[in-house]
Amino acid sequence: VAPSYAVDVLTVRKRIRTAEGGRLDEVLRSAGIPLNLYCGGRGLCGKCVVEIVRGKVSPPGGPEAALLAGKGFSPRHRLACMLRVRGPLSVRIPRGSVPGKIRVLDAGFAEKFEPAPAVKKYVIAPEAPSLDAPLSLAESLEKKLGRRLALSPEAVGELPGALVRGGGKVTVTVLDGREILDVESGDETDGCFGVAVDIGTSTVVVELIDLNTGRTRGRTASINAQVRFGPDVVTRISHAYEKPEGLSELSAVIRSQIDEMIRELAGKAGVPTGQIYEIVTAGNTAMTHFLFGVPVNTLAVAPFHGVFAVSPEARAGSLGLNVHPRARVYAAPNVRGFVGGDIAAGLSAVGMSGRTGRVLFVDLGTNGEIVLKAGGATSTTSTAAGPAFEGLSISCGMPALPGAVAEARWSGGFKVRTVGNKDVRGICGTGLIDILAVALAKGLLSSSGRIRTETGDIPVAGEVVLTQADIRGLQLAVAAVKSGVRMMIEQSGLRISDLDEILVAGGFGASLNIRNAMAVGLLPGVPERKVVFVGNTSLAGARKLLLSFPARDAIETYAKKIRHVSLASGRDFQDHFVSALEFGPYSGDV
Amino acid sequence: VAPSYAVDVLTVRKRIRTAEGGRLDEVLRSAGIPLNLYCGGRGLCGKCVVEIVRGKVSPPGGPEAALLAGKGFSPRHRLACMLRVRGPLSVRIPRGSVPGKIRVLDAGFAEKFEPAPAVKKYVIAPEAPSLDAPLSLAESLEKKLGRRLALSPEAVGELPGALVRGGGKVTVTVLDGREILDVESGDETDGCFGVAVDIGTSTVVVELIDLNTGRTRGRTASINAQVRFGPDVVTRISHAYEKPEGLSELSAVIRSQIDEMIRELAGKAGVPTGQIYEIVTAGNTAMTHFLFGVPVNTLAVAPFHGVFAVSPEARAGSLGLNVHPRARVYAAPNVRGFVGGDIAAGLSAVGMSGRTGRVLFVDLGTNGEIVLKAGGATSTTSTAAGPAFEGLSISCGMPALPGAVAEARWSGGFKVRTVGNKDVRGICGTGLIDILAVALAKGLLSSSGRIRTETGDIPVAGEVVLTQADIRGLQLAVAAVKSGVRMMIEQSGLRISDLDEILVAGGFGASLNIRNAMAVGLLPGVPERKVVFVGNTSLAGARKLLLSFPARDAIETYAKKIRHVSLASGRDFQDHFVSALEFGPYSGDV
Repeated sequence: VAPSYAVDVLTVRKRIRTAEGGRLDEVLRSAGIPLNLYCGGRGLCGKCVVEIVRGKVSPPGGPEAALLAGKGFSPRHRLACMLRVRGPLSVRIPRGSVPGKIRVLDAGFAEKFEPAPAVKKYVIAPEAPSLDAPLSLAESLEKKLGRRLALSPEAVGELPGALVRGGGKVTVTVLDGREILDVESGDETDGCFGVAVDIGTSTVVVELIDLNTGRTRGRTASINAQVRFGPDVVTRISHAYEKPEGLSELSAVIRSQIDEMIRELAGKAGVPTGQIYEIVTAGNTAMTHFLFGVPVNTLAVAPFHGVFAVSPEARAGSLGLNVHPRARVYAAPNVRGFVGGDIAAGLSAVGMSGRTGRVLFVDLGTNGEIVLKAGGATSTTSTAAGPAFEGLSISCGMPALPGAVAEARWSGGFKVRTVGNKDVRGICGTGLIDILAVALAKGLLSSSGRIRTETGDIPVAGEVVLTQADIRGLQLAVAAVKSGVRMMIEQSGLRISDLDEILVAGGFGASLNIRNAMAVGLLPGVPERKVVFVGNTSLAGARKLLLSFPARDAIETYAKKIRHVSLASGRDFQDHFVSALEFGPYSGDV
Repeated sequence: VAPSYAVDVLTVRKRIRTAEGGRLDEVLRSAGIPLNLYCGGRGLCGKCVVEIVRGKVSPPGGPEAALLAGKGFSPRHRLACMLRVRGPLSVRIPRGSVPGKIRVLDAGFAEKFEPAPAVKKYVIAPEAPSLDAPLSLAESLEKKLGRRLALSPEAVGELPGALVRGGGKVTVTVLDGREILDVESGDETDGCFGVAVDIGTSTVVVELIDLNTGRTRGRTASINAQVRFGPDVVTRISHAYEKPEGLSELSAVIRSQIDEMIRELAGKAGVPTGQIYEIVTAGNTAMTHFLFGVPVNTLAVAPFHGVFAVSPEARAGSLGLNVHPRARVYAAPNVRGFVGGDIAAGLSAVGMSGRTGRVLFVDLGTNGEIVLKAGGATSTTSTAAGPAFEGLSISCGMPALPGAVAEARWSGGFKVRTVGNKDVRGICGTGLIDILAVALAKGLLSSSGRIRTETGDIPVAGEVVLTQADIRGLQLAVAAVKSGVRMMIEQSGLRISDLDEILVAGGFGASLNIRNAMAVGLLPGVPERKVVFVGNTSLAGARKLLLSFPARDAIETYAKKIRHVSLASGRDFQDHFVSALEFGPYSGDV
């Protein structure tokens, strides 16, 4: 028998007994103390740090040591996921290592639209057949509904039993006005639901929606479980591309995560999952390919392109989603290359195709996507901003959870406001922009990105600091967006002052300080009134496409017309990119 | 250990050793001597008779004794499926108990039509994507084909690999001009196949067809394996209706039989089953419901009606058919009540909707279906003829296999011609009609159906005789058709002499002696030139619907317009039926 040891968790005054050799994060989880494991326990995200107060542990391996040093941790700290218990231990768990409940992201802005879902329920009492007119049950339904219907053998098979149980009355669920999805006994017209899903590279948001009323019945968000295969799109594409089981692993993970989130929402709302008849997703090109289990090899090398743009025709059952098995799964169409369905959904939500003037749409997520509409033509590009703004690659970075610094200003030192006004646990995207702008203004940071403090990092609050490595990450992220925007504007022969509107989408939301965003160079300098925060338009678009069938055709058609600008092939891009590495407002008017 | 005994099979000079208690039919089969078991070994069809020459066996039970007596067997005969070996035996096997290879039925007559299958293959070399136009692979295909395409996740997933393997060239299989069914590497346009299936209550015929050329690549027929649940439709409906697993048993049996027949055909023709992209079936209402696994409760009680008329939308994979998993399975539409897809297919084959004049279409299968077209209106009914004409309920009856009496005339005694000119083994449908007509003419049989010979049966050739019970069965079958035809003609205000054409469909085929059929009252008396044998139009129709997509819409539309005549509700039907029991030509002109 392996010897057992006591692990004392000082922060919660708890003693755990465990057998020799257990992984510390698992020992803690089994005792009800789960840690952040964005990378799935692979020692990559550095979010499960524990402080070893007493007890002997082996020294960290090279990559772990580098990660910890980069984050400014003392030698007493270790990643719990990399540590096996070999003797009695006393540990302290930093607050930043304990997960909080993800705040459900801003639901996003959407233009008004006429609801016209693809799924509709009808309660029908078909005429009884007679000896002289022994109409089939399906024909009697068609007669009542006044249209021809397509039926699966399963739906057909449910008809006679449902009619008997319903005393001659059935509820049929019709998809696209022609296919019977479901047959239920009696009047079940009230139970008609759909799900909108925003599959972000970092965060997945699911909404349960009543298709009769358009009302949201519940919303939930969680870290995309695929982060265990890598925090960004490129790592995941490599995983799918290089490992024999890679693609099916990534597919299975996102499908079961969505499935679980739907079950949670339906359970809370008291909605039977069998009455969920359509799922509309919005995600970038890679996410959508993973969802349908389609190879992403063509996204791995230039010219980066997807296998499909318009959604494949898929049913929930075949994707392993436990809603109604014949529920349709529709993905907002991918636009071009990496510019995916999340952007198409966003453009649908904000009614881009109908907007007049020169409109710049910037979605600041893990990828920074830019869409420019001017003179009736629309062009797009995507930049590899990386997950910095979402907190996944910054030492003190975190999503916009309670305790995350969301705003910062200077008053003899940093004064911060956190999400939920909780104790500071880390910094989320809007906080990072504020801190950058303040640090630049106060001379803590040079415009070339070098930290000028004595400690070599920027202290924000308590243990929360920005390191030089963090600044470099942010510098690259800002430069990616800035150079992309400049290229787009330049290529369409416009100047920044020509822009009538800048729509800022993404997790940042309305708490982004526009002046600070302009000061660091994330957004071009325009009068503030021209900037509109539209929030999570990917989710808003998924909801709109779920509730409006005609909107799908419209966005598919619009997406096909959008021209793709390849940054890599632009001769001036490297020049733009290098000069954009300098923090500061857009120079000139280009 | 159970003692073992020797079973000597005198007819083939073979000694089999077997353990005590084995069922004789199984003992024989294991030694390579299979017997006819149309009823699946349930003691119902009486086709596995053996003669016990030596050895002690228990006496037959009541139902078996009655069956054997009814068929005129001596007390030395037993049904092998009802007999367990309890000691050494010597047996002789009558030729009629050994199955022959089913002669593939007449392929049926079909009007000329323009082939336009729903499935078409295209070989495509999509343009390579560029940095500035990173079109998805699916969009490149659409561009080349000049149309929007729907893709399943599976088909989409096959695209990138197939393109690489095919050196930039793929073959896509397109269904209905809009859905990609299959993606293959390189040029596979030659491999495009479909299957036409005639699901008769007694016999199943499968044809493998090249969709590019319209050529039949193979045809095979076998006894419908569902006969083990009962020889006729009504028994099988009861089985499905009354037993909890009944419906799924009947579904599984027909599906796996069709699957096996397809595999056999494809194997012989060297066609990969994965290149079979569509299956079109024609069967009566119950058979079609069984195929799709749809409850038949509504076919069990009046007013008899199906659950569906137009084919459900089904794919081969979901029905367990091992062709291309996304291959469509289309069933010819059921018309009304028991008048099913076999009749719709037949009407399509003969071009009924386009025929002018007053046309009577009679399909003489296990059910006798009658369709009358006059003055632009079409009406139909079905009669329970039973399987007598197909040989399943007559003591010496058999399908049109080698050795079956197919023709008979009188020349000082019966002179017969058998299928394949083999030794007489039994009598098939056309032979039965000839024998009836001759026996009536020669006074061996009264018009009331009483046998007037001294032995009480009608000796045909060797051991083959018709018993009084056989005559009663034939009398009911002929009367069912005759009274049905009379009712239909009467209800439409016509006279027999008004008929311009009588199309006779069914297994009988062209070897039916028209004059004899008129003499016994099976067909109304009209000038012979008005009678056309159209053969197995169910199969011919399935083939036509497979090869012509527009024909499906046409027959679905036509079928909906056909009025159903309920014989049971006709006031005069009982009168008609009873008078029709009298053998003899149609009296009068009604």
